[in-house]
Amino acid sequence: MTYCLGILTKEGLVMAADSRTNAGVDYISTYRKLFDFSIDNDRTILLCTSGNLSITQSALTLMQQDITAKAEVSLHTLPSMFEIARYIGNMIRQVQEQNRPWLEKDGIDYNCTVLLGGQIRGSEPELFMIYSQGNFIQASKEKPFLQIGEAKYGKPILDRVLSFETSIESAAKCALLSIDSTMISNISVGPPINLVMYEANSFKVRYRLSLNIDAPYLTQIRQQWGKCLNEAFEQMPNIDWQHYLNGDT
Amino acid sequence: MTYCLGILTKEGLVMAADSRTNAGVDYISTYRKLFDFSIDNDRTILLCTSGNLSITQSALTLMQQDITAKAEVSLHTLPSMFEIARYIGNMIRQVQEQNRPWLEKDGIDYNCTVLLGGQIRGSEPELFMIYSQGNFIQASKEKPFLQIGEAKYGKPILDRVLSFETSIESAAKCALLSIDSTMISNISVGPPINLVMYEANSFKVRYRLSLNIDAPYLTQIRQQWGKCLNEAFEQMPNIDWQHYLNGDT
Repeated sequence: MTYCLGILTKEGLVMAADSRTNAGVDYISTYRKLFDFSIDNDRTILLCTSGNLSITQSALTLMQQDITAKAEVSLHTLPSMFEIARYIGNMIRQVQEQNRPWLEKDGIDYNCTVLLGGQIRGSEPELFMIYSQGNFIQASKEKPFLQIGEAKYGKPILDRVLSFETSIESAAKCALLSIDSTMISNISVGPPINLVMYEANSFKVRYRLSLNIDAPYLTQIRQQWGKCLNEAFEQMPNIDWQHYLNGDT
Repeated sequence: MTYCLGILTKEGLVMAADSRTNAGVDYISTYRKLFDFSIDNDRTILLCTSGNLSITQSALTLMQQDITAKAEVSLHTLPSMFEIARYIGNMIRQVQEQNRPWLEKDGIDYNCTVLLGGQIRGSEPELFMIYSQGNFIQASKEKPFLQIGEAKYGKPILDRVLSFETSIESAAKCALLSIDSTMISNISVGPPINLVMYEANSFKVRYRLSLNIDAPYLTQIRQQWGKCLNEAFEQMPNIDWQHYLNGDT
């Protein structure tokens, strides 16, 4: 499994991903799922991938080949994030079509999903989720985060804390808490956690980190968050049973 | 969708369920999913159901018929919770077999899952999850809660707060918070929330409630929990980027 998320705020973008890949519980590996195709001073292009690893790796390799070959159409030449989302969607479709008959024969899931975040000079930062079928949706001020993979465990904290107005520092912190909560509840999501924080209009990816399970900051926020939740829980009022004992069931 | 959970603690049992049923988002109904087949001073038998409503309703009706007909084998006669779990599993199998060919033809999901909690005089309280195939597992001191339906959103709070040593009052509060968190993230889980708190060895279900979305207690804990989470989040230390800027990605 995998858990990646992207957050779009007025100050910029946060993209984060775990690194666990598994083919059954008896074959667990670590693969990077957060990729940076940026060009300083021109464009910031960040991708997170989930789903069938052979499909996403092939698609990434082909996209890198287009860049290296200085193809007319590539992540480095397309004029808008929308065009880039379409290009990535087409690349996924192409790789899936090549593999589909062989994977389908053995009932192997070839689905994959991609998060695309970034900014091209002259435009605002944007965040997309590209589905396995190649179509895509875009984050908005009303829905400033997108998740792929094992998204449910980590969603309540995002729902409660995030908005488009949240500072980018807080968004980064929230992304780490969301992934850490997921790791506690699902062992198929695992470290290291890779995270990039991009300041809008900087056209340079300055802030990136990779946290192992025992990274001091991760340990600190995990413990503090657990402690705060337990303290908050203790403070919650108990059910006033006297009130309900007289009522209906 | 549905979300139900059962919690087994040293002091007793908590069973709770939402009440939303939907056949597509354009057909949403309210059905009770928490059922009480207890006999005062003899046995406490509580069930929560999820999955195909026609299957669970039929199984419940047949089980009630066995009770009413004073059949030799029923929820009121079987000598142990283990035997009751097996009886319920067999009842589910029987109803599924009757309906399976017709539902399969139209690709309709006939799966269902049941939580069974209770106590029979002479034994300790026990909690089971009965799968759609009729087999079942049992909660333990190490894993004191079981969930069915839309379980993921509400699991992090349980993972962080609950243990077998938790007081039954706190377990009831935690169950409500877990369901409320789920309702915020998934509209297919909805009120009223039904909850039963059973004190071990009391052989009487004294504490039960049904909370609508605007119930004062639910509103209070929802607001207070949201406030506490946001305050706790604000207190979490920001990422020390200076530390990471010198390190690897």
